[in-house]
Amino acid sequence: MSNIAASIITIGDELLIGQVIDTNSAWIAQHLNELGIDVLRRVAVGDSRDAIIKALDEELRNAELILITGGLGPTSDDITKPLLNEYFGGTMKVNEQVLEHLKILFTKRNRPFLERNMKQAEVPDNCTVLFNKMGTAPGMWFEKDNKVIIAMPGVPFEMVSIMENEALPRLKARFASDALLHRSIITAGDGESFIAEKIRDLEESLPAHIKLAYLPGAGMVKLRLTGRAADAQKLAGELDARQKEIAERLGNIVVALQDIPMERIVGNRLKEVGKTLGLAESCTGGYIGHQLTQSPGSSRYFMGSVVSYDNEVKKNVLGVKSDTLDNYGAVSEQVVTEMAQGALRVLGTDYALAVSGVLGPDGATERVKVGTVWMAVAEKDSIKTKEFYFPFDRLRNNDMAAAMGLMMIWKFINDPDPGQ
Amino acid sequence: MSNIAASIITIGDELLIGQVIDTNSAWIAQHLNELGIDVLRRVAVGDSRDAIIKALDEELRNAELILITGGLGPTSDDITKPLLNEYFGGTMKVNEQVLEHLKILFTKRNRPFLERNMKQAEVPDNCTVLFNKMGTAPGMWFEKDNKVIIAMPGVPFEMVSIMENEALPRLKARFASDALLHRSIITAGDGESFIAEKIRDLEESLPAHIKLAYLPGAGMVKLRLTGRAADAQKLAGELDARQKEIAERLGNIVVALQDIPMERIVGNRLKEVGKTLGLAESCTGGYIGHQLTQSPGSSRYFMGSVVSYDNEVKKNVLGVKSDTLDNYGAVSEQVVTEMAQGALRVLGTDYALAVSGVLGPDGATERVKVGTVWMAVAEKDSIKTKEFYFPFDRLRNNDMAAAMGLMMIWKFINDPDPGQ
Repeated sequence: MSNIAASIITIGDELLIGQVIDTNSAWIAQHLNELGIDVLRRVAVGDSRDAIIKALDEELRNAELILITGGLGPTSDDITKPLLNEYFGGTMKVNEQVLEHLKILFTKRNRPFLERNMKQAEVPDNCTVLFNKMGTAPGMWFEKDNKVIIAMPGVPFEMVSIMENEALPRLKARFASDALLHRSIITAGDGESFIAEKIRDLEESLPAHIKLAYLPGAGMVKLRLTGRAADAQKLAGELDARQKEIAERLGNIVVALQDIPMERIVGNRLKEVGKTLGLAESCTGGYIGHQLTQSPGSSRYFMGSVVSYDNEVKKNVLGVKSDTLDNYGAVSEQVVTEMAQGALRVLGTDYALAVSGVLGPDGATERVKVGTVWMAVAEKDSIKTKEFYFPFDRLRNNDMAAAMGLMMIWKFINDPDPGQ
Repeated sequence: MSNIAASIITIGDELLIGQVIDTNSAWIAQHLNELGIDVLRRVAVGDSRDAIIKALDEELRNAELILITGGLGPTSDDITKPLLNEYFGGTMKVNEQVLEHLKILFTKRNRPFLERNMKQAEVPDNCTVLFNKMGTAPGMWFEKDNKVIIAMPGVPFEMVSIMENEALPRLKARFASDALLHRSIITAGDGESFIAEKIRDLEESLPAHIKLAYLPGAGMVKLRLTGRAADAQKLAGELDARQKEIAERLGNIVVALQDIPMERIVGNRLKEVGKTLGLAESCTGGYIGHQLTQSPGSSRYFMGSVVSYDNEVKKNVLGVKSDTLDNYGAVSEQVVTEMAQGALRVLGTDYALAVSGVLGPDGATERVKVGTVWMAVAEKDSIKTKEFYFPFDRLRNNDMAAAMGLMMIWKFINDPDPGQ
């Protein structure tokens, strides 16, 4: 029943001064998790010999698997490879496969192969090379005292490629373990404590091998059930039942039973009903279109957007009347109504969402204060409008506006009656 | 000369299973850095009593300042507050200021104040409360053996609010230290090792208190000089001189001497020349408009975008000819040319960028393989077109397309001659 304990060590001064956000750790954790490997700790240290050795010493004491990212590049701030070589008592040797790959890569990129690049083909002779087809720095697999230590470059897509093609298949073969399964319930409209109160008895009745976590996000709260057991099939059944029970109790605040972002929930709904969507975005500047098009296949339901950041574009492209803009201002129920109707007409879609607001920090007028956003969602014979107020900074207000806009579309598809 | 050593401990199972990307640590590190406080380690642990205590024990051994985020919410997966109370030997007591704030917050949100919310007003009596005006969980400032331990909720905007209003001013007052200054050089067009080779002698001649780091990104490499010294003014002069020297050596691959994203470099350039920009985005779905509008004041130069995801929108809104689409396909030099010209006309801007491509994983045709992107940038009497090929996954291809599109605009503003 005991699971494999893993640690992630990320190396790089850029992580400690906050110049780079670590997205690698989350990716690694997610994918180890699917193999039933628990990440118990993540440690970030700088490009410093002492700090790296200390982190390795400490993590090796408790973890059976250590994944290291960063510090493998060709420039002189990257010190991890020689250090690992020394730490595990190896000798640096040119690896012919890596050398061959590097030469091809440099030719393709029309770059001369320099002496310092030769160093990149050197690897410790006591590791298994994890081939990096996306870049120059190879991954390395070390073993010591029956523990596994994997080192990979910090560039996210190189790390992903090495993990997917080299590391994960080997890890799967090596570590068999308990099944670890998740179920999610995405809710919108109520706060964390309110939800917790509503399902308190259900939460308290969960067996020891199933845990519930609350993850609040922009305008939503995600509930996550995590179960762990030897019998994956039985566990899946238990989790399904618990998920259903909680979702039924929470009723109409439940938006989805899958851990997928709001734009995919909307996309899936549009596919189900066979309808198309267009946007008229002002303050969100293209963000909602960007979110919708992150999913492959979004061209089936998303036709396009008129990003009418300037009022002239609202008039000339969407046909918003000058009078309406003059009388009510760009952030008004009247303007988003005309924007939505314009988008339906110009983009030729079944549904349209229009968004106009002031995200801040500047842009307040006599009529509207910073954080005010008007939205309208329309189909041919029906329209709903709503005013929002977001009290945060520009970027978070933009996140909230996009989330609430997508939510408005989702609700409108389910119930377009303007009387509601 | 010695600086304050800080550690960041982030708490939450969601961080270890990779459901959430940790953006807090980067923010905290950046802001501590500005005070001359070095983050030496970051540790992430789960919602587990033993793991949290172990992390505290370990980090207190080496750091003088510890910042903890997460685990302070009202639901039962949040265990940090009682644990810290116990760890520092305090007693939980209702804090009247916090209680008052909570009641107002709940009234505003039209929510009943529940018994479990009462717990949120309780804080250890041996800490200084760091008031949280953005949420329900207060921050806490503990002191032990002349070390400072700060605990904050994990919700990013709440953490930011507590840091800005409560923690950073107190930290600044308490820890005086060496100045730590950075200078950046943003380059585009050459790889990391090529740049390193070009400036090898300059790098080797850097004094011990100035370090150079290479940070590769989408289509660019960022160089960062970091200096540390007691005399901030003298250090600034030294860094400026080194930055100038390196930038001159690198010549026309230098895009900016400030660590700002490409969309702001373009925005600043447009402000300098007093011109406006419009977009015709197909495959990028609104992403370039989104990036441009992340900067406050972008309405001065960004007018809008026609996100013509569907070919009908390319025809009906941008005026791309049916014949052109039929003869050359949507991903072609001819179509992006007509899209850019259409955007100039429809959006009424000085410059327009058009982007059309196949980001993958599907969408390849007989004519174009996945990863192909055509771009055109135009003004009234001049146009430049270029074909790109990105070999990555959908999201990274989108990042690359946006970065290269912004770069194309920047280059075009500087040199619109189509003969170049």
